[in-house]
Formats: sequence, structure tokens, C-alpha cells
Amino acid sequence: AQPLTESVKPSRLSLPFSVRADQATNPVAAKLLKIMVAKQSNLCVAADVTSASKLIALAETVGPYVCLFKTHIDIVEDFSAQLIQQLLAAAQKHNFLLIEDRKFADIGHTVSLQYSHGTYKICSWADLVTVHPVPGEGVITGLKSAVADLHRGCFIVVEMSSAGNLTTPSYISSSMEICKKHPDFVVGVVCQTPSTLNNPGLLQLTPGVSLDCQNDGELGQQYNSPEDVIMLRGADIAVVGRGIVQAADPVQAAQEYRTKLWAAYEKRVSSLKLA
Amino acid sequence: AQPLTESVKPSRLSLPFSVRADQATNPVAAKLLKIMVAKQSNLCVAADVTSASKLIALAETVGPYVCLFKTHIDIVEDFSAQLIQQLLAAAQKHNFLLIEDRKFADIGHTVSLQYSHGTYKICSWADLVTVHPVPGEGVITGLKSAVADLHRGCFIVVEMSSAGNLTTPSYISSSMEICKKHPDFVVGVVCQTPSTLNNPGLLQLTPGVSLDCQNDGELGQQYNSPEDVIMLRGADIAVVGRGIVQAADPVQAAQEYRTKLWAAYEKRVSSLKLA
Repeated sequence: AQPLTESVKPSRLSLPFSVRADQATNPVAAKLLKIMVAKQSNLCVAADVTSASKLIALAETVGPYVCLFKTHIDIVEDFSAQLIQQLLAAAQKHNFLLIEDRKFADIGHTVSLQYSHGTYKICSWADLVTVHPVPGEGVITGLKSAVADLHRGCFIVVEMSSAGNLTTPSYISSSMEICKKHPDFVVGVVCQTPSTLNNPGLLQLTPGVSLDCQNDGELGQQYNSPEDVIMLRGADIAVVGRGIVQAADPVQAAQEYRTKLWAAYEKRVSSLKLA
Repeated sequence: AQPLTESVKPSRLSLPFSVRADQATNPVAAKLLKIMVAKQSNLCVAADVTSASKLIALAETVGPYVCLFKTHIDIVEDFSAQLIQQLLAAAQKHNFLLIEDRKFADIGHTVSLQYSHGTYKICSWADLVTVHPVPGEGVITGLKSAVADLHRGCFIVVEMSSAGNLTTPSYISSSMEICKKHPDFVVGVVCQTPSTLNNPGLLQLTPGVSLDCQNDGELGQQYNSPEDVIMLRGADIAVVGRGIVQAADPVQAAQEYRTKLWAAYEKRVSSLKLA
């Protein structure tokens, strides 16, 4: 990643989340930004666990320290409607939002069914979902058509961090066009570079964050430090997975990541303000 | 779509499926090609239904006429392990393969869990799955890591038919490089143009086929006729959804699509042979 330069519009990166909450173009983005300010947290935990009891335990454990709790509900072996009730209760108790990292990536008619039907009925409980823009904007209109009156939104995956990914500059640029056309549903983008997103009413979510920065061999995940992900990559919210989930003490790890990520955000805002 | 031209390598498009079965680089592709020959069918039905009883009824109804039965298992409201047993029984009885159109599109570690775990345990029953190459080849190595000894494979979605999609020529070209690196797991590609795939051991699967060719408005699906999809677009297997599923008489519709699609295949092979 390139360090922040003059050529990067400072608005999103230099504005405090409290100011940006008022510029959000949809209620879920505003709610998320307010939670971040209230909890002083720009930490999202990726809950990649395969049992309902572990998922709930993790939500209860890290809940106080996160703004967002990211699930892959389709890897849980003993999914039940009760699990969803418990997740929603944890989210309410600890004041965080739920994002199902579904990476919807089909035509509109199909994703509308995948979002609202089936075992998981994702739109009934997940405040947010992730979406790949590769099918064109029909993927967004399809999701929107399923939720009508609910307060729901999505992050568009415009850039991936995995080795050999196909999110080229032109792919990113086309993705951002789709993003701009749906301000009522798009909450932000998943990306890796600070110049991708300028709109301060949207959020940059960036995965691949770890304190020990070990890569994942041939499965292709690549990691950044908490400071780098906020300062160099321009993340507003950083996604931490195994660094917390597999830590000997997940509470201590969540506290450490939250402190470091929030400090990096404060440093970013103040350093860009002085510049 | 451009008509077939001299510049298109004729090998895949002109060779009979019976010859191509011997050139397949993995057992699932070989099995699928042999089924196509045995049943004289290059028809895949897209089973986009939201109840288990409708899904099984459809599999039993169209089973005799298809080589491949395409599911979105995650839109079925009353999914159960029994449904999978019934699907497998129908597949065995009518001699077709199952493809779960999951469009896996995450990093390797995640897709390996999504493929093998959770409510659906996709790799335990689906001969084939669809995969987006956007995360890079880790998405393929991740899926492969989950199945070890099973005979499983994937179609890589290199080109979409939906309006405003991001599968540009350079995206397609990078996707084909990933395809070429995993001949033991990749069965073919989902694409829309005859020149994308030359390898006769792989199959081109093309969705968006309908006899009445009505488009889907803002949800972005675009349709071709059965003859066009085989002759102009280069499909080996054509995917038909609502044209059969929502027909007044699905058996008659399946027979009609199968006949027309197979005739188009025979015409393609013989016309290119004479040329």
C-alpha cells in the first residue's frame, strides 16, 4: 500500500466518525458510525467458527469491544432459529451490528431469494451483508427488492486482499460506479487502499488484519498490522479473525486490537487535520 | 455474440462429446460428458424453487431429460438431510449430476468451510459447484482442500450474462489462467462467448436460455434462444430456468429444450467438421 498523499482527498480520512454519521446516506451507516463513536471501536471480529455455542460465546465475549460482528452463518454445523435469537440478543445487549459475510454474487432474482429465503433468511437478522459487484448492479437491486421496509444495507467488495485476486484498478473503478448508484443501500466498501473511497458518508471495511502478520500459504490470505490497516490502507473498520478468535485470551486480544485500531484512527484524523 | 469464425480454434466446438470424454482432465468432467452422450442431452435445468417438495418433484419430472440439475439449495425453506437423500436418489435413478450454484467467492480458508461444513455440507452431495475466480486461485485450492478423495469438481464463472457485469476481457483472461492451473478440479467454465474456452476436455456452461427470450428488467438477466446459445455462444451445456420450471407442462418444455439444444449441438459439430 502507498502511504497517504496529497492526492488523496482528505475528507473521508480526516473527518471524525461523529461528523460522518450526519453525512451517511442511509440509516444503517449512520447507526454504525454512532455505535463506533459511542464504543470507541472500529473493530469488527470475524467469527469463523463452526458451532453455535462457540459463535454465541464469541459474540458475548468480544461483544463489548466491537462495532460489528461478522458471521459466516453457513459454516455453523448446528444452526437453528434459536442461534439467531441469541445473536440478536447479544447484538442488542452489547450494542453492535451483525454482518453476514455472504458475498452475494449472482443475478438479482437469485440473490433476492438467497437473501430472504432458505434456512438462513439472512435479511431477517443481518443488519449488513457483503456483496460482490461482478454480476453488475442487478445484485444490489435484487437485494434491495427483498427488504423493502427493513433497515438493511451492504458493503460492496471492491478490492480483495487474497493473492492473485482479480480486483484490478478498472474492476475497482467499475465497482465504485455501482456503489455510487445505490446510496440508500450501500453502507460502504471492502477495499485495501485509501484512495478508493472518498465519500465520508460511506465506510471502508478492510479484512486481513493481524498483530503477528503471518500469511496463510497457498490459501491466499495476506495480513496487515492494526496501525497499517488504518493509516496506510485507509480502513475505517478493520476485520480481525484468527488473531482474536484463536487467541489464548480472546477478551484480552479484542481489547488490544480495539485499543490499537482506535488509536490509529485518532492518529489518522489528527495528523490529516494538522497537515 | 459474434458468429463462429475461422479465428476460433475448432477443437472444442467441432469435436463430439464422445471424443471429448476421453480428453477430460478429471473424472467428473468425463462422467458428465458420458452422461450427455448416453442421454443425448446438453440440457441443465436451473431448479430455482423454494420448497423441498417442489425441488424433488422437479428433479423427478425433468430428470430423464437433463445431464445436470442445478440447485440453489440455500433458497429452499424446508431443507433437510432427507431432501439431499431424495436428490441423490433422483440423480442416480435418472442418471444426471448435481451442481450447486453456490458461486463460491471468498478466500480459501473460508470457502473450504462453506463447502464442507454448515447446514448444507455441499461437498457431501453436489458433484459440481460454481466458483467466482475474483478472490484468486486460493478459492480453488480452498475448495480442493475440503474434498481430498471425493470425485468433485467446479465450473469457474468467467463471464456473466447480466446487465452491467464486470467480467471484462481482461477479467476473463485472468480467470482462464486460474482455470488452466487446476485441471484436476475444474470441469469447465461458465461463459457467453465461443472463443473463451478451447480445451476440448473442459465444458462450457451457459445460463440465460429461453424460448421466448424475454429479459428480466432491472434485475439484469438477459436471454438467448437454444440454437443461439449453442451455435453462436459456444455453450456445451445450456442452463434453462423459468422456461421449464414455470412452464404449464414442465415435461413437455424439458423435452422441447432438450431436443432443440441437442439438435443445435449436432448441427454445430457437423457444420464445423465440413468447414
